[in-house]
Amino acid sequence: MGRRLLPGVAAAALAFSLLAQDGGSLTEQYREVANRLINAALADQEGMEKLAFLCDRIGNRLSGSPALDQAVAWAAAQMRTDGLVNVVTPRVRVPHWVRGSESATLIEPVNRSMNILGLGGSVATPKRGITAEVVPVSSFEELARKGRSVVQGKIVLFNVPYESYARTVVYRTAGPSRAARLGAVAVLVRSITPVSIQSPHTGTLEYAEGAPKVPAAAVTLEDALLIQRLVDAGNVVSVHLEMEAHTLPDADSANVIGELPGREKPEEVVVIGGHLDSWDVGAGAQDDGTGCITALEAAHLISKLGLHPRRTLRVAFWTNEENGGAGGQAYREWVGDAVKSHIAAIEMDGGAERPLGFGLTSNGDMQSMLAKAGEIGTLLRRIDAGSVQSGGGGADIAPLMRDGVPGLAVRTVGTRYFEWHHTRADTLDKVNLEDLRANIAAMAVMAFVLADMPESLRQVPVSTR
Amino acid sequence: MGRRLLPGVAAAALAFSLLAQDGGSLTEQYREVANRLINAALADQEGMEKLAFLCDRIGNRLSGSPALDQAVAWAAAQMRTDGLVNVVTPRVRVPHWVRGSESATLIEPVNRSMNILGLGGSVATPKRGITAEVVPVSSFEELARKGRSVVQGKIVLFNVPYESYARTVVYRTAGPSRAARLGAVAVLVRSITPVSIQSPHTGTLEYAEGAPKVPAAAVTLEDALLIQRLVDAGNVVSVHLEMEAHTLPDADSANVIGELPGREKPEEVVVIGGHLDSWDVGAGAQDDGTGCITALEAAHLISKLGLHPRRTLRVAFWTNEENGGAGGQAYREWVGDAVKSHIAAIEMDGGAERPLGFGLTSNGDMQSMLAKAGEIGTLLRRIDAGSVQSGGGGADIAPLMRDGVPGLAVRTVGTRYFEWHHTRADTLDKVNLEDLRANIAAMAVMAFVLADMPESLRQVPVSTR
Repeated sequence: MGRRLLPGVAAAALAFSLLAQDGGSLTEQYREVANRLINAALADQEGMEKLAFLCDRIGNRLSGSPALDQAVAWAAAQMRTDGLVNVVTPRVRVPHWVRGSESATLIEPVNRSMNILGLGGSVATPKRGITAEVVPVSSFEELARKGRSVVQGKIVLFNVPYESYARTVVYRTAGPSRAARLGAVAVLVRSITPVSIQSPHTGTLEYAEGAPKVPAAAVTLEDALLIQRLVDAGNVVSVHLEMEAHTLPDADSANVIGELPGREKPEEVVVIGGHLDSWDVGAGAQDDGTGCITALEAAHLISKLGLHPRRTLRVAFWTNEENGGAGGQAYREWVGDAVKSHIAAIEMDGGAERPLGFGLTSNGDMQSMLAKAGEIGTLLRRIDAGSVQSGGGGADIAPLMRDGVPGLAVRTVGTRYFEWHHTRADTLDKVNLEDLRANIAAMAVMAFVLADMPESLRQVPVSTR
Repeated sequence: MGRRLLPGVAAAALAFSLLAQDGGSLTEQYREVANRLINAALADQEGMEKLAFLCDRIGNRLSGSPALDQAVAWAAAQMRTDGLVNVVTPRVRVPHWVRGSESATLIEPVNRSMNILGLGGSVATPKRGITAEVVPVSSFEELARKGRSVVQGKIVLFNVPYESYARTVVYRTAGPSRAARLGAVAVLVRSITPVSIQSPHTGTLEYAEGAPKVPAAAVTLEDALLIQRLVDAGNVVSVHLEMEAHTLPDADSANVIGELPGREKPEEVVVIGGHLDSWDVGAGAQDDGTGCITALEAAHLISKLGLHPRRTLRVAFWTNEENGGAGGQAYREWVGDAVKSHIAAIEMDGGAERPLGFGLTSNGDMQSMLAKAGEIGTLLRRIDAGSVQSGGGGADIAPLMRDGVPGLAVRTVGTRYFEWHHTRADTLDKVNLEDLRANIAAMAVMAFVLADMPESLRQVPVSTR
C-alpha cells in the first residue's frame, strides 16, 4: 500500500487506520529518529533527578509563595543547562491566597476531630469560628429543594458521590456560592476523589458575583459519609469550623519559557509544557511537576541528540494554573499576534502514570489533524503510547486554543491520579520511573515530529480527501 | 457415592474432596438449616446497624478509654437484646496508654511537617522534644552493620518495604529496642502498609527487657521515602520529634461474653468472637468491629431462627487485643479447666472483606479436622466462602489453642485491609454491606454446625481412615 493517501469519502479516517497498519510518510520519515528519542527516554535518569529536586527540595509552590519564586529561578537555570535558549521569565501577576491554620470538629451528636483542607480562595471564619448545624445535600437539585428555609444559618455539606473529576468538581467550585445564596454560613465539600484514607483534597472555589462569600473547606470521604449517616439516623449534626484563610494583594510570579529555535521556520512554534505552581500541600509531584519535567526532558533529549527541528520547539512552565490561570492568560498575551504561527500546544497536566497517547482538540479540520497526529502516534506504538483521540487541551493552553491553536493533552491510564490530586500525598514516590520515562518518550516524539514535519499540523490539507 | 467414608491411606483428605463433590453426612444433615442461615444473613440489616452504633456513636476505644467502657456496657446490653443469655462482663485489668499531643518536623535539609502516629506504649520525648540526625535502615542487618558508631545519638528510621503485615511488623514491635540498644535516641518506623495517601499507621511496640526506652512513632510511607531520598542524595537529614505519650496505671476493662446454651451438651463450648478494643484513631470498624458484630449477628440469627445447638455457642468480645492481649489471657483463666470442653474457637480479626472461608490450626489430628471443617465448608459454597485451609487462630484465642482448643480464623480476600489497619481511616465506610452479610453467613453456618454436629470436632476419630 505504501504511503499513498486514498481518495474518497471519509478517507482521512480510513487513511489513518491504513497508515497505522502499514506505515505512512511521517512514520517512515521519522522512524529512526523516533526510535533514538524513545531509546534515550527509556534510559533517562535526569528527568527523575530534576523532578526530585523540584518536589523534595523546593516542595509545594502555591502562587505567591517563596517556593514558587524559587521554582521559577531554578527552572530558568535548568532550562539553560538543558540546552534551551531564549530563556525568559516574563512577569505574571498572580493571586496570593494563604491558608492559615484551620480545623473542624464534629461536636454533635458525637465529638470527633475532622480532617479538612480549606478550599483555595476561601475567606476566613470569624476568629472564634462558626458553629452550626450541618445540612448534607447530594446535588444542587437537592439544595434547591431544601431551599432557604432549611439552609439559612446552616453549614451545607455537598456530599456528592464521585463520578469523575470533571463531573463532580463543580460542587467544589460553584457549591460555596450556591449554598451562600440560600443563607448558608459555611460550606463543606466532600473531597473529589474515588478513594480515601482520611485524605482531604483541596482545590479552588469560585465565588459568584454578588453572592455572600462564606468559608469553605474540603472534608474527607470518611467524614462526609459519617455526617450523612448521623443525619440519616435522625440526629442533629453540628460542626465547629475555624479557618484563617485570607487573600493578600496580588503577587509577582512568572512563566518560564525556553526554546530550541527552529532551523527553517523559527517563527512557527510548537509549545509544550505544564504548570509550575501547585497547591500548598504535598509536593506538586504529579500535579504538575511531571508535566513540566516531561516537557523539559523531552526538549533536553532532542537537544542532546543533536536534533534541530524545522520549527521552534518551545517549553513553557505556566504559573498559577491552580488558582487563577494567570500564567496561561499571560502567555497568550505575551505571544500576541504570534498566536497565528503557533502550530500546536501540548499541555501535560494529568500526571505521569503509564501513557496511552494524546488527546487533540482544534477548531480546524479535526479529521485531518487526528489522522496526521495519529500517524505520528504510530511511532510510539512500541511503547503503547501512540493512541490519538479527539478531546485534548488544558487550562494553560485554553487561551491559545480559543484563538485557533490545536491543543493536545497527554493521556495516561489515569488509574490513581485523582487519589493523590491536591492532597498531602502528591509526592515524588507516586511517580514511577518507567512511567515517567515513557511519558518523556511520548512527548519527545510527538513534539519533535510536530515541530519538524514538512507540512504543519495546522496546514493539513483538506485536499488529501 | 453417598456418604460413606473411604478406607485406605490418606483417606481423610480424599474423603474431604469426595464429600465436597457429592455431599457427605454433615452436608446433607445441615443443608437446609445452612441455607436458612445464609438466607437470613444475606438479608441482614441489624448487623450493619449495630456496627454503625459501635463505630459512629461510640467510636474508637483503646484500653483504658471511656469509650471502651461504653462499648462494654453497650455490647452486654446488645447481647441480651439479641437473645443471648448468661451475659457477663468479667473484669480484666488492662494497660492504659495515652497518646497525648505529638508532632514531627523535618528540619534539615528542608523544612516539612510530617504526619506521624506515635506507637502504642511509647514513652514521651523530653518536653522540648528531640532533635537529631536521622539514620535510615532497611533491615535489622543494616542496623547491625551500621552499629553503635553510626547510630549513637541519632534517630533511627526503619524504612522497610512492605512484604506482608506478618513479615514487616517486627520492625514496629522490636525495632525501637533494637535501635535503642545501639544508642538511638528515638525511632521512626515506616508504616506497615502497601499503600499510603500520607497515612500513618499506629500499632504497638514491645520494649525489650533491659533496653533503654526511647520514643517511637510511625511515619508515612511518603515521609519515609522522602527521608531516604534525601539521605541517599548525600544530605544530613534532621528531624524534630515531640511526643507526650505516657502510660497510666492499669485500668479496669472487661470481656463481654454471652451464650446460646447447648441443648444436649451445654458444658461443651464453641466460642466465637473478635476484640472490642481498638486503636485510638479511626473507629475500629474493620479492626475489629466487624469481628465482634459478625460473631454477635451470627448468634443472633441462629437464635432468631429458633435453632438450639447441641453444644453451647458462646460469643466473646475480648478486650485489650491491641496493646497487651489481657482479654484473651483473662478469658483463658476465666474458663479454667473448662478449656478441655472447648470444642473450637473462631476468631475474626482480619476485617469483613469478601470472605473466602476459614483457616484452622490445632495440635490435634489436623487432617481429620480439616476434612470435617471442610465438609461444613461445602455448606458455604453457594456464597464462595467455604474453603477451609490449614493455618488459623488469633491473638485472643491463642491461649486456648496452646491448651489444645482447635482455633479457626475467618479468611477473606484481604484486598485492602492493611491500607486501613490502625489508621484514622478505619471507619464504617470501609465495610461493604454485602461483604459483611457474607461474613455473618459464613460465621453462622460454621459456628452452628460446629456446635451442633453429633461428633465434635475434637473427637473426629482417626479411625475414619
